[in-house]
Amino acid sequence: MSRPRNDTLLRALLRQPTEHTPVWLMRQAGRYLPEYNETRRRAGSFLDLCRNPQLATEVTLQPLARYDLDAAILFSDILTVPDAMGLGLYFAEGEGPKFERPLREEWEIRDLAVPDPYTSLRYVMDAVSQIRRALDNSVPLIGFSGSPFTLACYMIEGGASDDFRRVKTMLYERPDLLHHVLEVTARAVTGYLNAQIESGAQAVMIFDTWGGILSHGAYREFSLAYVERILGELKREYDGQRVPSVVFTKGGGLWLEAIAAAGCDAVGLDWTVDMGEARARVGSRVALQGNLDPMALFARPEIVAREARKVLDSYGPGPGHVFNLGHGISQFTPPENVSVLVNTVHEHSRRRGEK
Amino acid sequence: MSRPRNDTLLRALLRQPTEHTPVWLMRQAGRYLPEYNETRRRAGSFLDLCRNPQLATEVTLQPLARYDLDAAILFSDILTVPDAMGLGLYFAEGEGPKFERPLREEWEIRDLAVPDPYTSLRYVMDAVSQIRRALDNSVPLIGFSGSPFTLACYMIEGGASDDFRRVKTMLYERPDLLHHVLEVTARAVTGYLNAQIESGAQAVMIFDTWGGILSHGAYREFSLAYVERILGELKREYDGQRVPSVVFTKGGGLWLEAIAAAGCDAVGLDWTVDMGEARARVGSRVALQGNLDPMALFARPEIVAREARKVLDSYGPGPGHVFNLGHGISQFTPPENVSVLVNTVHEHSRRRGEK
Repeated sequence: MSRPRNDTLLRALLRQPTEHTPVWLMRQAGRYLPEYNETRRRAGSFLDLCRNPQLATEVTLQPLARYDLDAAILFSDILTVPDAMGLGLYFAEGEGPKFERPLREEWEIRDLAVPDPYTSLRYVMDAVSQIRRALDNSVPLIGFSGSPFTLACYMIEGGASDDFRRVKTMLYERPDLLHHVLEVTARAVTGYLNAQIESGAQAVMIFDTWGGILSHGAYREFSLAYVERILGELKREYDGQRVPSVVFTKGGGLWLEAIAAAGCDAVGLDWTVDMGEARARVGSRVALQGNLDPMALFARPEIVAREARKVLDSYGPGPGHVFNLGHGISQFTPPENVSVLVNTVHEHSRRRGEK
Repeated sequence: MSRPRNDTLLRALLRQPTEHTPVWLMRQAGRYLPEYNETRRRAGSFLDLCRNPQLATEVTLQPLARYDLDAAILFSDILTVPDAMGLGLYFAEGEGPKFERPLREEWEIRDLAVPDPYTSLRYVMDAVSQIRRALDNSVPLIGFSGSPFTLACYMIEGGASDDFRRVKTMLYERPDLLHHVLEVTARAVTGYLNAQIESGAQAVMIFDTWGGILSHGAYREFSLAYVERILGELKREYDGQRVPSVVFTKGGGLWLEAIAAAGCDAVGLDWTVDMGEARARVGSRVALQGNLDPMALFARPEIVAREARKVLDSYGPGPGHVFNLGHGISQFTPPENVSVLVNTVHEHSRRRGEK
């Protein structure tokens, strides 16, 4: 009943046939769009924008007004959950996200508690509901969260890191403590994503931005195991509709089979993986999302189109492909190239015949 | 005749049996050692240190005085070649390497010329000869260079980069220009490595630090193809001895089979790859070097030892393994943990029986 009129994304994520390959872009509502920068100026800071459901709705819809995208994705930050856990998120100019109270002492870790998504993260749920109303069943809305390990990286390092020394020292020296952080965070993420689904998110994505810095063995134990636990407790159906899930581990190409077996409907791929090879490796177990190099958008239009077609041709015919970039779109991207990309994906996949 | 008394490294790189698994560490002569910092202070800047054969010899030998390492590696910078090509290498405090004259204009690219390693890079050859004399045939000396693509990243970006936007824009927009940079640089690297071999390097390693930022297809075309060309023109034998070659692509685990087929004797692996799986993938084609997470050295000694044993056990018995970290050692590493690591590798591999 609340099925979007364009439901190609939802069908592709479930490996059902579609008339064209759906396309959306990670960070599609962002700084490469002048209208985003204008709204952000009005909001004050980036966090003010995230916390204002009205303005978050406005920026979520901006790329859909410009481009023929097949999905909207909630505008928010991946660090809202640890912020709601009391760590005090802030953004230092030009330095990225930081926490006022990173996890340094054992008692701080033992004190971590799961936040109620409907109180401390109310602004996110309000944004989800408002975006759904504004979309008016045109395209589906994707909700998201960072993975427990990715959140733990920021919670323990206190911000971005070159070497992840603190979190990895804990991993090797006190795995019990890191497991405790991950366990509490996994419960928090589960509640957060389920609340997004109850508020109107029609698909959910888990961003494991930093899983790829782990060793093969540690990835399974400290990242994938918690993603798997979340997937096992997500609402797979809501309001009579299946809610597909996507897991994206940047740098996780080596572990594709393991990720595909974690219980998600689709796996996001960065551009280091060949789509066709990835498809052969996962077979019919999951859909695949990706994976154009975001830097390809800096070339002239005919090259953008050629590179987009390469990704589509590498995946080949048949269902189960959602076109995306292999990482978030760069703030320096020429906006007109995004039109070329979106239109090429639609035209080339339609021309090739139904999927 | 100039065979080192401890030649386990050379034998392991050629997949010949050894009594223990040889071990050396990327960046083993570096800032985690107080004696290194002391020499560097005396030298003035990092570049002054690289350009002073006497002091470069001194720091190359420092880790060998402390630890029972099976190889020395030339102390130098990977950017000496583009510096000799006239780009003007300098180090801005806390910002890493930069070039005064990065490649911005087409004419600058067309003007690139292959430097004579015996004139503009004389200081490197002098360091190699002096280190060889100082080593007095105790352990082999490894020479090295950055890969053409890795060097091109710095030459085009002008320094370190988060997104490699300039080099990738050139890759997509003007591949002909990037190929020209790579072609000239590959010839420069070939001459540079052959001069190191003639000066006394007993093995050589090509560091493809940034190959892993490329898409699967672009990696082969813009990085591996040039590494392959260099390998095809390297002196494979000198002074009556085989000179083994190692290729290390950080983030290249997905492309292991292709790298193993490029003509090198060994492939370096970062810690995201499982040693045992990697060995199964390459079979008897190449030796493998790696791959402990450098951050494991921040744990207490018994954990350092356990993690080292895990890598050895994952490779399993039989020849062809050179133990190393999966990346350069961190400047914050406690030096005493390196003893634990080196001794564990020797003892555990000896205990397990000959290889």
